[in-house]
Amino acid sequence: MNASAAAMAAERVMSRCDALAEISETPEYLTRVYLSPEHLRANALVGKWMKGAGMQVWQDGVGNICGRYEGQETGAKALLLGSHLDTVRNAGRYDGMLGVLTAIETVQYLHDRGERLPLAIEIIGFADEEGTRFGITLLGSRGVTGTWPESWITHPDGNSITVGQAMRDIGLNPDRIWQAARDAEDFVSYLELHIEQGPCLEQEQLALGVVTAINGARRLNCRFTGEAGHAGTVPMSYRKDALGAAAEWMVFIEQRTPQHSPQLVATVGTLQCHPGAVNVIPGDVALTLDVRGPEDQALAELLSELLTQGEAIALSRGLSFSAEEYYQIPATRCDDALQAALTQAVNSVQGRSLSLPSGAGHDAIAVAERWPVGMLFVRCDRGISHHPAESVTTQDVAQAVQAYVQAVNAVACSQSA
Amino acid sequence: MNASAAAMAAERVMSRCDALAEISETPEYLTRVYLSPEHLRANALVGKWMKGAGMQVWQDGVGNICGRYEGQETGAKALLLGSHLDTVRNAGRYDGMLGVLTAIETVQYLHDRGERLPLAIEIIGFADEEGTRFGITLLGSRGVTGTWPESWITHPDGNSITVGQAMRDIGLNPDRIWQAARDAEDFVSYLELHIEQGPCLEQEQLALGVVTAINGARRLNCRFTGEAGHAGTVPMSYRKDALGAAAEWMVFIEQRTPQHSPQLVATVGTLQCHPGAVNVIPGDVALTLDVRGPEDQALAELLSELLTQGEAIALSRGLSFSAEEYYQIPATRCDDALQAALTQAVNSVQGRSLSLPSGAGHDAIAVAERWPVGMLFVRCDRGISHHPAESVTTQDVAQAVQAYVQAVNAVACSQSA
Repeated sequence: MNASAAAMAAERVMSRCDALAEISETPEYLTRVYLSPEHLRANALVGKWMKGAGMQVWQDGVGNICGRYEGQETGAKALLLGSHLDTVRNAGRYDGMLGVLTAIETVQYLHDRGERLPLAIEIIGFADEEGTRFGITLLGSRGVTGTWPESWITHPDGNSITVGQAMRDIGLNPDRIWQAARDAEDFVSYLELHIEQGPCLEQEQLALGVVTAINGARRLNCRFTGEAGHAGTVPMSYRKDALGAAAEWMVFIEQRTPQHSPQLVATVGTLQCHPGAVNVIPGDVALTLDVRGPEDQALAELLSELLTQGEAIALSRGLSFSAEEYYQIPATRCDDALQAALTQAVNSVQGRSLSLPSGAGHDAIAVAERWPVGMLFVRCDRGISHHPAESVTTQDVAQAVQAYVQAVNAVACSQSA
Repeated sequence: MNASAAAMAAERVMSRCDALAEISETPEYLTRVYLSPEHLRANALVGKWMKGAGMQVWQDGVGNICGRYEGQETGAKALLLGSHLDTVRNAGRYDGMLGVLTAIETVQYLHDRGERLPLAIEIIGFADEEGTRFGITLLGSRGVTGTWPESWITHPDGNSITVGQAMRDIGLNPDRIWQAARDAEDFVSYLELHIEQGPCLEQEQLALGVVTAINGARRLNCRFTGEAGHAGTVPMSYRKDALGAAAEWMVFIEQRTPQHSPQLVATVGTLQCHPGAVNVIPGDVALTLDVRGPEDQALAELLSELLTQGEAIALSRGLSFSAEEYYQIPATRCDDALQAALTQAVNSVQGRSLSLPSGAGHDAIAVAERWPVGMLFVRCDRGISHHPAESVTTQDVAQAVQAYVQAVNAVACSQSA
């Protein structure tokens, strides 16, 4: 794909992102949730674009919009491309949508030239990745892997409407969810293009990067318990200040985490002091710890060291420390061959590539339960996402489409064997 | 005063503390506020005990209960003793009351032996030190110094009843507040006995200590402002984590403060993270700083260094820092001669003495505007105060009465010259 074709494709992607952003439950800002009228309208528009790229189009049993572009032999296994079409509340217009629309451009490019690959290409616009409406995530991609838990059908939204009822309300049959599930043999692998939602590519002045893994995450509620006291009458040396202990621990977390690996992150996002008055030494501090990384073992080692240090700090001060894990998701490795194909494509487009983990979750997490996955990241302005200020440049999207076309071609040729 | 006389006096003090604790607006716990029916009942009971010690008794223009025991010559200048009779909500029974009742014991001791000193002794049970009802403090002692601001008369309580109205409700005339003010020549100096409300005497295994100064205090609202961000996608090295900066500052505060002086204290009592979610890097942290110390200059130097360091930490991380002082009270020095007399008395009773600052405020702050002040501290269990668990031992009170009698004698003899 030459530069002028890529520029035209990128212009079309940008205008289609704008068009999809008009399909929102409120005119003031973009919100498009699962099983809403806007969900169906977005599917219809994306389906129309898929058809324009020469694809056979259908909506599956959980509401994903699907398209197939046959390969050199009808009925061949497919390379699956995709991302999601739902949004958070007050969203940006690229998170998810960019991956679906650039995938359509790769097929459009083949279709315009009457070209067929050794594999078919399928594209899925997943119906729910964010979990905005029901608080459960990856419903679209887990429909395709066939791994919906039974309980999801009766899971309620904020208005007590269950998933099953909401499906019926828009003409989907919850008894036919299984029809969305695809056989393992249908696809050879999955590629997803997505905005980075972080600042790494921007810092490296690169438009594109290749994902090594989607970070695993662990979340804990932690607590230091000391003794409240009068801020005036208790000398510093007699204090059992829970906030002082927490501060020492937070400094350790911040210093030690990047020493383990620059790919690990640890965040204390919330902290409450009790009793919480200007003139009272905090007797009790509750805080959360969120740690993430691309390798489960390294993440476990970091977390273990952080908790050991929390205990040690408490012990040295005569306080107590506790930590309770309430959420855990393992890391998702991206396939080595897919990473190599993406890296080669990115190298040829921008001269060099950057391999980086994904800090955010994606449909690829679910898809990876069944098929090898690879992900291509596109730089976004200041790493801002889940916000109306989310932004990508047309130039970056042009490079993304070029690299994506090249990678799809390479994977389809190498994996058809 | 020999040990058996002191023990008897201490038993009486303890039972009188118990009797006063019965005078409460609720039976479940002790609360006695200014200008309440309980205020008058407590005054009546304390006045009765003063009379029993041979004192002339009156209630002054702001509701303080006052007693005078003449010296060798009628109408001589007086040594003033006192503390307060009001309480916080859900209070202990010694904070304030112990100082009034031990003062009465010193006069009782003279009266029982028909002894007169070169100075008269006056005792005041101050009517409001805590500020529980109206949120303004030291109303009793500032009545005696004649430094009530005009605005206090119209200051409302939580039920919109003004101080002036509340005075009329119990038979005090707000037009006669000035009658509580005493001439500078009336008193040579002021002594106050009080529970420590901190752990220092207990840690030193001493019943009694001598106050060097009542700490000055400064309170500030501080803020670190960085950038909120995704806890998964922003590497540690790119973060502008406001809580990380706050943690580094809090560790500095805790380490640096005692290096300036063991008598300085600094407390971060409250801290809020914004936006405050487990998976979001805090972009903004608001926290309070309370610093106290017995010398204004040393306190100012500490505060200046802490704020400079807050700025430096913010600068080095690309954040901003701000601090706004909203409360300031200067330190109150205790008089050297009074400290010496108290120290000699404490030495003779318990073998050695400890000089320490007072972290909490007392009536002596107001009295010091007009007369030299000295304070004697009595150990309290675990430093607990403003709580029903507030506790002193009868043995410690016996030592306190012994030392107080001796100090009053010494001051009256030396200051009558």
